[in-house]
Amino acid sequence: MSPSSPILHITSRDNPALQRLRKLSLDGSAYRKLGSVWLEGDHLVRACLQRGHPVLQAVLTEAAAADPVLRALADAAPRQLVVPLALFKQISGLESPAQIGFEVPLDAGQDLAPEADTVVLDRLQDAGNVGTILRSAAAMGFRQVLALKGTAALWSPKVLRAGMGAHFGLRLIEGLSPEDLGRLRVPLVATSSYAEAQLHQIALPSPCAWVMGHEGQGVQPGLMARCSLTVGIPQPGGEESLNVGSAASICLYESARQRLLAPR
Amino acid sequence: MSPSSPILHITSRDNPALQRLRKLSLDGSAYRKLGSVWLEGDHLVRACLQRGHPVLQAVLTEAAAADPVLRALADAAPRQLVVPLALFKQISGLESPAQIGFEVPLDAGQDLAPEADTVVLDRLQDAGNVGTILRSAAAMGFRQVLALKGTAALWSPKVLRAGMGAHFGLRLIEGLSPEDLGRLRVPLVATSSYAEAQLHQIALPSPCAWVMGHEGQGVQPGLMARCSLTVGIPQPGGEESLNVGSAASICLYESARQRLLAPR
Repeated sequence: MSPSSPILHITSRDNPALQRLRKLSLDGSAYRKLGSVWLEGDHLVRACLQRGHPVLQAVLTEAAAADPVLRALADAAPRQLVVPLALFKQISGLESPAQIGFEVPLDAGQDLAPEADTVVLDRLQDAGNVGTILRSAAAMGFRQVLALKGTAALWSPKVLRAGMGAHFGLRLIEGLSPEDLGRLRVPLVATSSYAEAQLHQIALPSPCAWVMGHEGQGVQPGLMARCSLTVGIPQPGGEESLNVGSAASICLYESARQRLLAPR
Repeated sequence: MSPSSPILHITSRDNPALQRLRKLSLDGSAYRKLGSVWLEGDHLVRACLQRGHPVLQAVLTEAAAADPVLRALADAAPRQLVVPLALFKQISGLESPAQIGFEVPLDAGQDLAPEADTVVLDRLQDAGNVGTILRSAAAMGFRQVLALKGTAALWSPKVLRAGMGAHFGLRLIEGLSPEDLGRLRVPLVATSSYAEAQLHQIALPSPCAWVMGHEGQGVQPGLMARCSLTVGIPQPGGEESLNVGSAASICLYESARQRLLAPR
């Protein structure tokens, strides 16, 4: 057995550490002020550890502290807070609270990688969509995601849940303006239903930056003007439209498909 | 001006029509007993009208009744209920309630089309995922969706919202067992991370039935055994996994892509 990290038993809801975690859990953008993020559930906790992300502390219910598997995860944290289920529920964003969570420090502002395969998020509103796109980006090898001002907070509990751990394998930068994208040295590609080029018919630039726009309004004009290519996603079923998470996943797959089939 | 349909002004929350609508709105599967569906918002209402789906009644706030555009939509219904905003809020599933909604009859059990391009949903839990898949299926020309028992109710308000009107262009059948799929005359194709065939490398059967499984458990073994083909989605980024809505959208796109490029 490896030695366990220090364990604090907390029973007061007024404990400052718990107050801080409640804030991180309930306010999706509180991490920007507080500099740390709340990860709930063993899946996110494992993803964080697998990627070697630093950890500030683990929080466990009393039941989790008695579970050898969850206890082993918590031992990876420099300290552990064990709390009654009722207190854990107060920092949980889930209907059925998980039994374990980590508070982790947020990477200080990362540098934009000018030549990296990139996904640009232009004011996407829905946390589920944003998390889904992070997950697809990680799977398809697009390891940089740039979020323009107005996009849902990338490290909010809801986006973290939908991202299923993808956050820890990505370079994530948020709060950018369209002008900031001028630092990219890869072509910007956007989808548009007015585009003449169809996704399945053209050779996509590689590397590139896929631009995904607001659920209702699409890509803002000032950003669209910076795109060197627009493509339509073929929709032989008719005039229907796609969810932006679906559209992004299809575009990223098509980029990956063309690369995998390209002669070496 | 076309003559308006009869207008009832309702101010009591105890009105039986409103009680029924509250039930339809709050209980995602109540439509199965009540035989009708609540569509909230002008987008769904328009999609319903464009597809020629029958309508039982329109419900409008007083503000909507004074809006010529919304009023014209409501005139397509055989009767209109005008209610104060406070009462509309009680039948709204949205944080910001829409100003208009329709109650529409649900198609009585449709017949399974044995030779149609199909998507099979095996116990998908998340309403957003289900709606996203319906939308992608409609866009990619897969016009039959079969939901096995345990899948989120297809006509629930949440799935309707995520489907963005796709419901009205699809043949939707739910409550099926894996055995019922024996009536299909098209091959069942499932995704699997253990499959040798990779999506981008094989010629997909056409028509076919794409099988999408439970968010956590995947496709149930008894159904997997009925699949004549399993394929992996290439994920060059590493060991990440995809959201099931993303996976479905990618597979449906790949089917559509291969058809569009196939020689006539």
